Amino acid sequence: MEPIRNVSSLDSHQSLEIATELEVHKVVPPPHISTFKKLKNRLKETLFPDDPLRQFKGKSSKTKFILGAQYIFPILQWGPNYNLKLLKSDVVSGLTIASLAIPQGISYAKLANLPPIVGLYSSFVPPLIYAVLGSSRDLAVGPVSIASLIMGSMLRQEVSPAKDPILFLQLAFSSTFFAGLVQASLGFLRLGFIIDFLSKATLIGFMAGAAIIVSLQQLKSLLGITHFTQQMGLVPVLSSVFHKTNEWSWQTILMGFCFLVFLLLTRHVSIKKPNLFWVSAGAPLVSVILATLIAFALKAQNHGISVIGKLQEGLNPPSWNMLHFRGIHLGLVFKTGLVTGIISLTEGIAVGRTFAALKNYQVDGNKEMIAIGLMNIVGSSTSCYVTTGAFSRSAVNHNAGCKTAASNIIMAITVMVTLLFLMPLFQYTPNVVLGAIIVTAVVGLIDIPAAYQIWKIDKFDFIVLLCAFLGVLFISVQGGLAVAVGISIFKVLLQITRPKTVVLGSIPGTDIYRNLDHYKNAVRVPGFLILSVEAPINFANTTYLKERISRWIEDYEAEEEETKKQSGLRYLVIDLSAVSAIDTSGTSFFKDLRILLDKKGIELVLVNPLGEVIEKLQRADEGHEFARPDSLFLTVGEAVASLSSTFKCQSLNNV
Amino acid sequence: MEPIRNVSSLDSHQSLEIATELEVHKVVPPPHISTFKKLKNRLKETLFPDDPLRQFKGKSSKTKFILGAQYIFPILQWGPNYNLKLLKSDVVSGLTIASLAIPQGISYAKLANLPPIVGLYSSFVPPLIYAVLGSSRDLAVGPVSIASLIMGSMLRQEVSPAKDPILFLQLAFSSTFFAGLVQASLGFLRLGFIIDFLSKATLIGFMAGAAIIVSLQQLKSLLGITHFTQQMGLVPVLSSVFHKTNEWSWQTILMGFCFLVFLLLTRHVSIKKPNLFWVSAGAPLVSVILATLIAFALKAQNHGISVIGKLQEGLNPPSWNMLHFRGIHLGLVFKTGLVTGIISLTEGIAVGRTFAALKNYQVDGNKEMIAIGLMNIVGSSTSCYVTTGAFSRSAVNHNAGCKTAASNIIMAITVMVTLLFLMPLFQYTPNVVLGAIIVTAVVGLIDIPAAYQIWKIDKFDFIVLLCAFLGVLFISVQGGLAVAVGISIFKVLLQITRPKTVVLGSIPGTDIYRNLDHYKNAVRVPGFLILSVEAPINFANTTYLKERISRWIEDYEAEEEETKKQSGLRYLVIDLSAVSAIDTSGTSFFKDLRILLDKKGIELVLVNPLGEVIEKLQRADEGHEFARPDSLFLTVGEAVASLSSTFKCQSLNNV
Repeated sequence: MEPIRNVSSLDSHQSLEIATELEVHKVVPPPHISTFKKLKNRLKETLFPDDPLRQFKGKSSKTKFILGAQYIFPILQWGPNYNLKLLKSDVVSGLTIASLAIPQGISYAKLANLPPIVGLYSSFVPPLIYAVLGSSRDLAVGPVSIASLIMGSMLRQEVSPAKDPILFLQLAFSSTFFAGLVQASLGFLRLGFIIDFLSKATLIGFMAGAAIIVSLQQLKSLLGITHFTQQMGLVPVLSSVFHKTNEWSWQTILMGFCFLVFLLLTRHVSIKKPNLFWVSAGAPLVSVILATLIAFALKAQNHGISVIGKLQEGLNPPSWNMLHFRGIHLGLVFKTGLVTGIISLTEGIAVGRTFAALKNYQVDGNKEMIAIGLMNIVGSSTSCYVTTGAFSRSAVNHNAGCKTAASNIIMAITVMVTLLFLMPLFQYTPNVVLGAIIVTAVVGLIDIPAAYQIWKIDKFDFIVLLCAFLGVLFISVQGGLAVAVGISIFKVLLQITRPKTVVLGSIPGTDIYRNLDHYKNAVRVPGFLILSVEAPINFANTTYLKERISRWIEDYEAEEEETKKQSGLRYLVIDLSAVSAIDTSGTSFFKDLRILLDKKGIELVLVNPLGEVIEKLQRADEGHEFARPDSLFLTVGEAVASLSSTFKCQSLNNV
Repeated sequence: MEPIRNVSSLDSHQSLEIATELEVHKVVPPPHISTFKKLKNRLKETLFPDDPLRQFKGKSSKTKFILGAQYIFPILQWGPNYNLKLLKSDVVSGLTIASLAIPQGISYAKLANLPPIVGLYSSFVPPLIYAVLGSSRDLAVGPVSIASLIMGSMLRQEVSPAKDPILFLQLAFSSTFFAGLVQASLGFLRLGFIIDFLSKATLIGFMAGAAIIVSLQQLKSLLGITHFTQQMGLVPVLSSVFHKTNEWSWQTILMGFCFLVFLLLTRHVSIKKPNLFWVSAGAPLVSVILATLIAFALKAQNHGISVIGKLQEGLNPPSWNMLHFRGIHLGLVFKTGLVTGIISLTEGIAVGRTFAALKNYQVDGNKEMIAIGLMNIVGSSTSCYVTTGAFSRSAVNHNAGCKTAASNIIMAITVMVTLLFLMPLFQYTPNVVLGAIIVTAVVGLIDIPAAYQIWKIDKFDFIVLLCAFLGVLFISVQGGLAVAVGISIFKVLLQITRPKTVVLGSIPGTDIYRNLDHYKNAVRVPGFLILSVEAPINFANTTYLKERISRWIEDYEAEEEETKKQSGLRYLVIDLSAVSAIDTSGTSFFKDLRILLDKKGIELVLVNPLGEVIEKLQRADEGHEFARPDSLFLTVGEAVASLSSTFKCQSLNNV
């Protein structure tokens, strides 16, 4: 507790003077708005915070039609003005991301326990759909590491990809369909704010944990182990690695080590010099070609180095007949779709927003969700698994100077050519080089400086980060995420359940009142206890507030006794400036508080209730307590000045 | 949108004057507190909001011991000063509540599908335990209607009380044990705030729904139906009633109708004249005696009126050998214990607090939880099912003039005498009169005036109430409760996800700034957009805030264009007085906002960030933007005055 600092300059005479000088302003209820209109405004702010129809206002119907079509198909916005110069930029960036997308597509499909070719299929159809529907110019669409990992690990809980590959593939496509459905529905129902509940801290911890899990899985190919554990956790994987030392193959390890060093070096170069982006962008393809040539020349498969094997030529076969919406695995499929859908949506939207902010254009979150969702729905019936905007490839796309979504089209065409003519070339590609490519890609997801920054700013956020990280490592990928989201929401609820109440004091020579613990020059006003409540007052905190305020009053009285001052507590002033909302429990709280204070001979004074708060207080105010002019003020300064003058007058009269 | 109202009185000359006149106060970070100490304070406020060790401060160790013993056993507080006068009052009230507790105990046990005698057992042991441990003087302890209903309906989902009565009884005792364990743990871990999440609106709706469900169940005994549905919902019960009209017994209906009218009349009398409390308090026992005599005289069981039948004499048999902590029903038992534990705790604590407030003494929530929890744990091994403080009986206890928890002891002794000697008398008690007693008791739970009051004050709270009510009627008792709690929490989260931002204007002739939409006399200051954000800024709302603030800026510019004013937006002033907390997403938000504004040539100015907020902003502030004196002010008035003076100076220099 702070010792009582008295307002020495504010003696009775002066305070009287201030009171007569100051005009006292009335608190008025806000203008009446009907419940229906309030509900409409509330819904609008909740679902349409970006006011998407704004641009249509006051336009002719023809313009409205064109704007509407452009709104649904952003390609109509940039397509008509497309020219050779833009095309040149897009071709360069499209080819660059294709050289990254082909090896990554194959690798990520293996991460999801799917046939490698599915990764290439998924880099062909979805980018085409996105180019038509998407509003980001930089997003490079395709399979991503974390969504692949989650899909693979969740489906593997019920079905073995080795024993039952067809069923596994069916479940993967069905999950992709559900993921797309969830994404498109979130966008269509304008519930995009749900992904906001994945805070930055959660994501950093989650990504780092997932990157480690993904990297550990690569030990299978990097060490050449044939009998690897089916589990994902840190402990089972490491124990599997060290119990199978007899399976380690030195040829594989040597090759993996060389390519890993090469890839990490090129990555380092590109980070240091962003205009050398093509070094790290081209490195995976170079590695694949080099490794394939070496493997072919040395007949590596005879030396313990496993290779991809024969891949089928040709474009995506249709897969709608593989979508299953009933049977015993429906629950799993829906859960997998939900989790991968939301995770990949979060990545896609975050990446889109990041690059839009860099180039200063707008990305409409809900529209993007519909685009990504439709791309996955179409993908699920053309042999693609879940795709989204990938962070690493989008960064390369941006650095390579892409101008429009056409770079996605160029990439898709390149993948198409590969699918049609180049598949035999991958027959001898060693799996170890794919492992090295994945490790290099996910290492970038471990963002230690950002984690340190969060530690520096907010310890609680760091705890959330740590929970996500450790949860992913030791529970499971989706379990860690759930724990972190739960803790984030619990923290928000806790802030509401235990709102801060602070004692305000006057800053001498002004009528500004601020927190006594924060502003050391602020002083108490004798006879007044001025509190500020810093949260909405509702069912979750009224009991606490009652106890806390009683304690403030007791503290005040105890301190007066100690310091032998007998001015006595006359007024409890509650500053409601920070109380943004109130409910019926809150209005009862004030009624109860007034009864409690009446018994102690203390008057309750409220200051600056906001629109909604004063409205509800007056509706609940049966005794018309708030109609009395001396129980409601616009500022603390006016309240103190006005009340202390009446107080002094009374004292004078009593003398 | 509001039209722009200009500050006509604030021309350039005057604003310069104000700026030089006004002393500008600096925003300082709060005094440094270590993370550990912050965490300690936070934990203390969360878990010990009532500071229970306060009374021990500075006392001798002997006094500390006595105070400690009194803290754990409140009976040591009032016991030593107990005298004959207090005893007289407590005997009167104890006998009164016993006359209510005996018929209600039998009735509620039937509601829970338990043998009637268990209701009497539960009115004997728990009140004795509570008298020693409880801190409320008015609470009358025993079985209550809603917890009985929930326990009966939840356990019946898996086990039939008719087919397997022994197993059902075992599950009931085990659930009671878990309920007690949950209650005592919540109190011991000081997590009592969890029951605060059941808001008043939720409870009113829930109670009304439960009262209707309970009353509908009584149609079985009131109409004399023998083959009644096993379900609880409104629809199945009504359909069962009207499909079994052939089972209706006119003798039962006549008897039920007469006693129901009698009981409701006595209830009405006691509500109108509270000092006639004994009329409604004694009526159930009178009804039971009368009905039993009639049934005995007329051999009612031969006329289609069902009677209780033989009850075993003797005190509570031990039941610890009936507690089961493994097997297939463990999940159900734990779930039932959790739900009934929390529901009965809520009722007990609410009742205790209500009467404590009337008599102006304190009830310690967490201590009460431990008392109620221990009472149920002991109860579960002495053939009692879940008990708590009952609202109706506590009200009678209070009106009958009880002085201490000794009235519970008197009640227990009366029940003991009944158990030992009077049980044969109940053999002929007709079930229909028990049904009438239950209906009369639960009718009081339907609080229409309170529901109307909530409708008047807060429409959203009323929706919560309605959801709880309809959920209980059409889903299930616990389902309705879950829906209502979910909606309440969702509302709180929505307030955080979509915080209000309001435009402030100057109230002419003052340096007070208030909401333009609320205070119609407030006027805009040209060149300034002054916003106030009314919620903590965190991960859940930074995306929204970014979009909303962009929209405010666009609105401002659009309006300037319309009104052909070209003062141009120079400063975005954000009043952070109501931002009680911030996290790392929030600090990034300000960084992003500054970049956005820089591109438009607008300066960002923050006003009055609270302790925690300024601390984190400065820690995250790498560019030392907040170190500049003109980006941080203590009040909006000072910010506007100071900035508009520099602005004018610049303009003058440019000329």
